Amino acid sequence: MDRDLTAALVTIGDEILIGQIVNTNATHLSIRLTELGYSVKRIISVGDDPDEIKQTVDRYLNEFDVVITTGGLGPTHDDITKSVLLDLFGGSWVKSEEQFAVIIDFFEKRGRKITAINEMQADIPSTSKALINEVGTAPGLWFNRNGHDLFVLPGVPKEMKFLMDERIRPILQKQNTSRFIVQKTLRTTGIGESFLAEQIGPVGEFLPSHATLAFLPSFSGVRLRVMLKGNNQADLNLELDKICQFLIRKAGSHFYGFGEEDLEEAVLTLLKEKKKTLSVAESITGGLIGDKITNIPGASEVFMTGFVTYSNKSKIELLGVKAETLSLNGAVSEPIAAEMADGARRHSGTDFGLSITGIAGPGGGSEAKPVGLVYIGVSSASKTEVRKVVIPGDRKMIKERAAFSALNFLREFLLSDLKP
Amino acid sequence: MDRDLTAALVTIGDEILIGQIVNTNATHLSIRLTELGYSVKRIISVGDDPDEIKQTVDRYLNEFDVVITTGGLGPTHDDITKSVLLDLFGGSWVKSEEQFAVIIDFFEKRGRKITAINEMQADIPSTSKALINEVGTAPGLWFNRNGHDLFVLPGVPKEMKFLMDERIRPILQKQNTSRFIVQKTLRTTGIGESFLAEQIGPVGEFLPSHATLAFLPSFSGVRLRVMLKGNNQADLNLELDKICQFLIRKAGSHFYGFGEEDLEEAVLTLLKEKKKTLSVAESITGGLIGDKITNIPGASEVFMTGFVTYSNKSKIELLGVKAETLSLNGAVSEPIAAEMADGARRHSGTDFGLSITGIAGPGGGSEAKPVGLVYIGVSSASKTEVRKVVIPGDRKMIKERAAFSALNFLREFLLSDLKP
Repeated sequence: MDRDLTAALVTIGDEILIGQIVNTNATHLSIRLTELGYSVKRIISVGDDPDEIKQTVDRYLNEFDVVITTGGLGPTHDDITKSVLLDLFGGSWVKSEEQFAVIIDFFEKRGRKITAINEMQADIPSTSKALINEVGTAPGLWFNRNGHDLFVLPGVPKEMKFLMDERIRPILQKQNTSRFIVQKTLRTTGIGESFLAEQIGPVGEFLPSHATLAFLPSFSGVRLRVMLKGNNQADLNLELDKICQFLIRKAGSHFYGFGEEDLEEAVLTLLKEKKKTLSVAESITGGLIGDKITNIPGASEVFMTGFVTYSNKSKIELLGVKAETLSLNGAVSEPIAAEMADGARRHSGTDFGLSITGIAGPGGGSEAKPVGLVYIGVSSASKTEVRKVVIPGDRKMIKERAAFSALNFLREFLLSDLKP
Repeated sequence: MDRDLTAALVTIGDEILIGQIVNTNATHLSIRLTELGYSVKRIISVGDDPDEIKQTVDRYLNEFDVVITTGGLGPTHDDITKSVLLDLFGGSWVKSEEQFAVIIDFFEKRGRKITAINEMQADIPSTSKALINEVGTAPGLWFNRNGHDLFVLPGVPKEMKFLMDERIRPILQKQNTSRFIVQKTLRTTGIGESFLAEQIGPVGEFLPSHATLAFLPSFSGVRLRVMLKGNNQADLNLELDKICQFLIRKAGSHFYGFGEEDLEEAVLTLLKEKKKTLSVAESITGGLIGDKITNIPGASEVFMTGFVTYSNKSKIELLGVKAETLSLNGAVSEPIAAEMADGARRHSGTDFGLSITGIAGPGGGSEAKPVGLVYIGVSSASKTEVRKVVIPGDRKMIKERAAFSALNFLREFLLSDLKP
């Protein structure tokens, strides 16, 4: 088969349309389908409306090779997906004995009584096959019409993921073709989209016609996504590597990692390689930097202690910050950031100390010290450095960006400090 | 006008379709449009493909009163939205002098040289009006066809939000009709969707026909969203309050807050009301509980100190945990959770101490102490309590749920401890 295999996602439920929840399900399914060589052409959200669900599924199943729906399979009255599909594909209700056994087991384990609406979750249209859900009570459904597949999944992320990864993936892998998609994402920071584009130069000069390069800007920097399509996976991977090496050279020190590798992972890797340890003293971020660092498996080799010194008293008692420095400069100041970083390092006996103090708002700002003002300190045995940044946005955004700036400052400090 | 005003969102860009980014822009726009009384009927993502963009915008602009697109307005080669719309609506390129002035100012302030591609961002189709973007360089666009409005926004969340809130909202408010939508969401925890449904009883008995009730389950509990449509806003609000009071009574102690009020906010409110202070000792969560608490404005009145004691050494030195208790029971144990909570409270001089210790994985688990095992401690002057939970999922999910369980344990402790 030479043409691309195509896919579409249909998210069912008013809660997406009114903005109650973010559509992270679509993101997971898109990643999986892309890995499987499918080109996702549409993601659509429709409401809990029988006609719209029916028409959308019907149209997309004609148009695309694979359609996956999520949502509307729960036990309550607003979950109508199953009845709509019985109406579209015909057939009658049959009980999936296998799913029924899972449901009984599910309630027994929790010591709860099974209700009539729970039992009905095992009923499926006779025109479909059940995709047995082992992490919840609603089975997924699999319909096929004219060689096109429709998969119907619950909206609960854990259950949707289980059914995609354990049930649908093996089915689609068997239908695999000789068409491959390879992709890689490069992470950069500290350079804007247009400057990076100029630094890289005209894409026509290094990008073959079966490749695409996307610039994906966010507050933390610009990601570069390279994607290649073709028939020979090994050749594609070689080509991809060559293009990435070219881009990394062009991006210079702005490049820090691949794919989902966040800055905290780059920092931990630097520290692990040199067998160095870290402690953190956080005021404005309240624990966010420690949280980010400890999201990385193996963080305990490097990260020893976090001091969340939200009050002046705790800065003095836990970090040895001087009361005089506080009264002279205020808690949000260059000297305090320096004393916090030194204190964190000395009081925990680590090689490096990272500190952060600032004003997250909405209150507490002044003309001299506005909301968003942040000081970051890094301390090693040989030197202590402080960087001042002013960050726009609301409280959560300021905290998030402040944590990012702190990790990037530490990364730059480590790059120069750990040089052989 | 009696019919609902309808809206559709079109997200442009391959990065959504391959799952590179989550569509949070659609969530923000949906919330705003719903507040403005629009019924969002479709959210669709299409790729960087001129024909698909053109056809989708054309079709939706016939079908819906308002269409908003995001994405594809950046300065790089893969941003094609503007040219596609020039093609669809006709006209020629004209320069928006007002946006051009913003662009020049933008680069001057940053001390950077303006490039040719930056200058081109001020060019817009003569068939549109510019929506001046003060927080970025790409202007939004406003087209009108047969009384239907098309708004075209950049994909960068900050710029999208600015243009929606500062430019589009005032335009749509002027077109306001006599049709209102009111809604409220109730947060519950500790009870499953089907049990909550049974506890509440048949919806037909308390829900009028112009109202909807949705059950939105997530790991943190079930949210109940009530929505009402009608012509008289005051009447609708009275009705909404009555329904919510009924549901709160039915949900009992499982109810903890409204709308976006997270558990940490409910906990802070409890503490603030009684003028009590809190310190936290975190191991497994690495700072996440402190981060959550400090996301709430005014947290500094209540939250004094966080001890992120990731190593045994830091548990002993910062919290006074006994080396003997550690060697006898291990760091993940009931006695350690108790000593950590007591230590946090005593060493920071707060009224309450909350502690958490556990195994986040992927490594470090054993048969006796599996990945996901978590102990939570709460300490007050009069008593110390520990709760054991076992949490499924990956590292990040375990941390997230552990933090949630800890806050809920603290909430329950406070409810009984602070009783008058």
